[in-house]
This record gives sequence, C-alpha cells and structure tokens, in this order.
Amino acid sequence: MKIRAAVLEQFGQPLVVQEVDLAGPRAGEVLVKVHACGVCHTDLYTASGADPSGYCPCVLGHEGAGVVEAVGEGVASVSVGDHVVCLFSPECGQCVNCKSGKTNICTAIREQQNQGYLPDGTARLSRGGEPMRHFMGTSTFAEYTVMPEIALAKVNPEASMDAICLLACGATTGIAAALWKAEVEQGSTVAVFGAGMVGLGAVVGAKLRGAERILVLDPSEKRRALATHFGATEVLPGGEDGVQQVLDRTDGLGADYTFEATGLAPVMGQAVEAARLGWGLCTILGVAGRGEKLEIVPRFLITGRKVQGGSFGGAKGRTHVPQLVDLYLQGKLDLDGFVSHRITLDQVNHGFDLMHHQDGIRSVIQFS
Amino acid sequence: MKIRAAVLEQFGQPLVVQEVDLAGPRAGEVLVKVHACGVCHTDLYTASGADPSGYCPCVLGHEGAGVVEAVGEGVASVSVGDHVVCLFSPECGQCVNCKSGKTNICTAIREQQNQGYLPDGTARLSRGGEPMRHFMGTSTFAEYTVMPEIALAKVNPEASMDAICLLACGATTGIAAALWKAEVEQGSTVAVFGAGMVGLGAVVGAKLRGAERILVLDPSEKRRALATHFGATEVLPGGEDGVQQVLDRTDGLGADYTFEATGLAPVMGQAVEAARLGWGLCTILGVAGRGEKLEIVPRFLITGRKVQGGSFGGAKGRTHVPQLVDLYLQGKLDLDGFVSHRITLDQVNHGFDLMHHQDGIRSVIQFS
Repeated sequence: MKIRAAVLEQFGQPLVVQEVDLAGPRAGEVLVKVHACGVCHTDLYTASGADPSGYCPCVLGHEGAGVVEAVGEGVASVSVGDHVVCLFSPECGQCVNCKSGKTNICTAIREQQNQGYLPDGTARLSRGGEPMRHFMGTSTFAEYTVMPEIALAKVNPEASMDAICLLACGATTGIAAALWKAEVEQGSTVAVFGAGMVGLGAVVGAKLRGAERILVLDPSEKRRALATHFGATEVLPGGEDGVQQVLDRTDGLGADYTFEATGLAPVMGQAVEAARLGWGLCTILGVAGRGEKLEIVPRFLITGRKVQGGSFGGAKGRTHVPQLVDLYLQGKLDLDGFVSHRITLDQVNHGFDLMHHQDGIRSVIQFS
Repeated sequence: MKIRAAVLEQFGQPLVVQEVDLAGPRAGEVLVKVHACGVCHTDLYTASGADPSGYCPCVLGHEGAGVVEAVGEGVASVSVGDHVVCLFSPECGQCVNCKSGKTNICTAIREQQNQGYLPDGTARLSRGGEPMRHFMGTSTFAEYTVMPEIALAKVNPEASMDAICLLACGATTGIAAALWKAEVEQGSTVAVFGAGMVGLGAVVGAKLRGAERILVLDPSEKRRALATHFGATEVLPGGEDGVQQVLDRTDGLGADYTFEATGLAPVMGQAVEAARLGWGLCTILGVAGRGEKLEIVPRFLITGRKVQGGSFGGAKGRTHVPQLVDLYLQGKLDLDGFVSHRITLDQVNHGFDLMHHQDGIRSVIQFS
C-alpha cells in the first residue's frame, strides 16, 4: 500500500514527507493505522546525525499509538480493531531477559531492530522497489506501520490516542522509573533534575507513589511552573549549584530518591551527589552525548548511595503501558497536560523546531 | 593506667611503640583488653599521610577483638568478661539512620569520632598529661582501649580472637557485601576484582549465598591461588582487559554481581562494565585515592546495570558481626585462612612492610 511518511533522507537535513510503499504484515507482524505520534528527542538526535548507530534513509517516529488494521500469520494477542501503543522496547516474554523478570530489555528482536529491519531481517518499507529501513522497530511518523506483535501494547480503546501515544516513550520513561524502577516510598523526599517530558513523568510517578516532597530543578521558569502543575512541591533553578539547592532544603542530607532527566553528564553527577547518604537512590534516565561520562566520587557510593538507570524507565511495555493507560482513564495521570502542540505530519520539522527552542513539552502529530 | 600502644607520631614515619596513659571508661564507655588486632590498609593509609582527614599523634589500629575489663556508668549491653569485636562503625539503634533499617551508617557519634574523640568530645588517651586523640573510635594497636558501648559487638567467646578480629573490618567488608548488601542470588555468576582481604571476603560471602560461578581477577598468582582456596571457581589475571576476561567467560553477558575490592578507580569502572546488562549489580568496596573518580559510560546504567557501595560492606556491626562469628564457629567461614602472619605489637611496622609487598593477606598482632 501507499502511505505518507516523514523520511530522514540525510542527516542534519529536514525530514521529507512523501509517499512510500508499505508491504503487508508477515507472520508475527501487525499492520497498524497510526492515529497519533509524539515528536521525541530521540527522533531529533538521530535526524541530526549525532547518534553513532543512526542510518538513513528511514522513516522516523517511535512515540505512536493507533489501531490494528490487519494481522499476519500466527498473531494471537491482538486483533483487528484493537487499540495499541507502538513500543520501541518489545516484550516477548520468552527470552532469558524477559523470563528473568528483572529487566525490560527484551533481546528477542534486538539485533534486527537495531539495524532497521523487522525480526525476519527484511523491511516492509520501500520506495521505487528499493527497500527502506525502519527506525526503532516503529517508524510511526507515517500513516501506517508494520510492527512485530511483541512490540504492541494492547490498551483500553476509550483512551485518547493523542495522549496515550506519549506512553510509547517519554511519559512512560519518567513515570515508570518512579513507580517501578525506583519504587519511590510513600512519605519520601524526591529530587528531579530536569522538567522536560521525562522529568515531569518522574514527578507524576513520585506523586502517585505518595512522595511527601518533590523538588524539581530546571533553569526554565515555564518548566518549573509545569512541574508545580504536575505535583512538584518545591521548584528550584538548578544550574551549577544544583546539589547545594537540594541540600539546603533537606537539612544537608539530600533526597531519598533523585532522578536525572536531562541527558547532561554533569547533571547526572549532581543527581548522584544530591541523593541521601545511607540509602539515596539515583536513577539516570537521560541519554548522554557520545563519549560523555558520568563521574562519581567513590565516597558517595561507599556512604550508601546507589545509582541505576533504565531505558524506557525500566517499563515492560506490554505489561506496564496498559496499566498506565488505565491510570490515565481513571484521571490519575494527566497525559493531556504534556501535549503542548498538535501538528500534522507535514509539520513534523516544525515539531523539531519547537523542541529545539524548548517551546512546550511535547508536539503530537495527529493523523486524520 | 599505663598501656603499651603503637603511636603515629608523624605522617610517613614508622609508628612508635611506647607507653601511654589510658583513663578509665566514662558513662556509656567500656574498657577492652585487646587480644588481637589485624593490620589493615586504612591504618597504613592514615600513617602515610595520604588521608586528608588524618591527624597525629594518635594510636592507630581498628581491627581488634578483646575482652571487656570494665564498664562505665549506664553500660548495659556488655559486661566484664564478654568477648567483643571493636567496631569503627557503631550501631546505636536510635539515630535516624539506624532506625531506618536501610543503612549501617550510624551517625550517633560520627562527628566526635572523626575528630579523634570519644562521644563526649574528650580523649581517654594521654601522654605526660597531654591528651592524645583516638583513631576511628578504636585505637586497637594497644593493649587496652576505651570504646563507646555502641561500638562493641558482643560475640561467642569460643571463637579465636586472632580470627574474629578480622571481622572488625576487612573480612566483614567483603563477606557482608555479598551476603547482605548485594544479596547474591543462588545460582548466579559473580566476578570479584581484587583478591585481597576484602575481595576474598566477597568470594566467601558469594559462596555462602550459593553462587554457581565465582570469577576472581587479580594479577598476583599467589592471590589467585588463595581465591581458589576460598571458593573462586575461575581465576583470571585482571589488568587492563579485565572486562573482556569476564565477558569471554560469560557468553559476552557479564556477571550478575560484581565486586570491586582494589580501591583503584579504573578497576571500579571495570567492575561496572563487567556487570550484566539488564540487572548486573556492581558493589564498590575499595577506598579510592584522594581526588580519584569513578567514570561510568551512562549507557551502562541505562541498559540496566546498578552501582552501589558500602562502608564496612554495609554491615551493621552489632547485628551482623556476631552472626559472622557464629558462621566461623560452625566451620562455614574460614577466617583463619586470612591470617598470613602473626606478629607482636612491637612488629607493627613489619606488618605495614608485609602489606606494602603484598606478602600474605593479613598480619595479626597478638597481645599476650
């Protein structure tokens, strides 16, 4: 079938929205009509050429939600008409990692996905008979996509696609990190570094877990205001003395839980240092630039701080995303508050511009 | 009373064994006749002047065990004749940290202890009427010491003092880290970096927890042989390609648990990297040099590795040390195997020399 899609033709150049060919789903695959897709930093990161594992041409997009249009042979867990969130992080339930229960890093289709192919090593996307690679196993900057069954989270169809598409990446990363990765304790003190989508998600997650104090550090006044909206009890400007700002407000002790959501290595270091002596747990969520390293004074660890990280906030997509959708429907998760701009597929580059200028939290592409 | 003790007179100079004065125990304090004391790296570190928080003159020594000779007012948990292990890490049971149950970092007497004083801010040690500071709250390179009650672990008197004194620091650090800090899972794969006292302790702890594979990396052939004796299933030379050595033996995955027991920042980095994707837990136990930093590529965290550390291996001294003594008496803990040299107090500097030359694991000072 012919579909319209935003293609990364060349690194550092705007995406080109155009018609491409999409083949039907093979065994274990599903055709999804994309209804909404967030424009995420990772798309921009790859488009810029900064990602060393990036490739082009390909159809970008990985924060999508839609409806199942057709299923390939053997697909049993989703049916035509099901509402689904498209996962870059699959959950096969069968690999060593999935079976361990200890991690969300499913390795079932990792290798092919990283190279831009579906699990059988081929692409459904093409142009003029030439195959074109997929992106993150999702390629949801497109009217339709073909995805592996194990990368689709079936969700309650009552939820708005504009909102729940954010659960495909950014929102879940922060929320899940607080809910299930750090398992924030009721009554505790939390410090979140960075009030973008991921940081705000961590605020929401911490609030859901009953944190008593949620400190948010961000240099942007607008974002600090948003943080307050989402549940921050105190907002701070951050910057070079971010650690001191947290210590000043915690009797010099630091926070029980810290979350880093900036992708800046020095801020990661701050998040470690601002965690409380004895048991402070720092969760790193941002993606650092190539070659950057997190530097830790070992004494901070010896005195009881812990550091962890989590891709997708540690969320197991098929298990956790439907739960988050339910929380949204119960009014406990204000996903709509994250959506600052609604755009069309043709405006995708405008979405990148808005992100560049930190204008709003998330642009969501709405498909007709 | 007059006692013989090894005094650090000047940084970088040999200790001077001499007679000093020791006042009797005040309220909450206990007079202990020291029977045995290990010579530990931390003593050497302070003696060398490398420790920025070090001071002198003082009586060094912090790996001691002995018998209660007298108790001060209000002391209820130990009595004359009790066998005790002398703890640099107290456990008051009352401070916020102790009550949390989450950490072994008791803050009850921390400030005074760090400055070389007993909890009331004075010293029991003196010389010619001049007070002399204590070291780590223990000062067990001496025939007798006065210590806070909350820093004494009462243990089964059947255990040999030569052996259990090691539980005052080095042995417990490694063993407790594996047993209670990392909580090594049965059947798991463990990699230990460094086969000194702490690393060997981690091997013993991992074995007690039922680890299936215990890889130990150390450049010294002698220490690798010791590691095998204590339960290592594979020994490796370590060095610059230590990570690769672990990956080569774990199908490229890394170990479920890694322990760093060298104090070298680059090896700490290796221990992080050699932990398994998804859930590998790295426990840092060594004390790094001043100004050294642990550098971590954030991606290692994002893909599920965790990093923690623990002073005294996270052991709560009064709770855990008696349990370890019991394991020793049950034959489950070969503490005697750690003792490579038995020396007198007058030979304390020889103990430092042996350590310098990595000759053996531990010299233990025996008091008559």
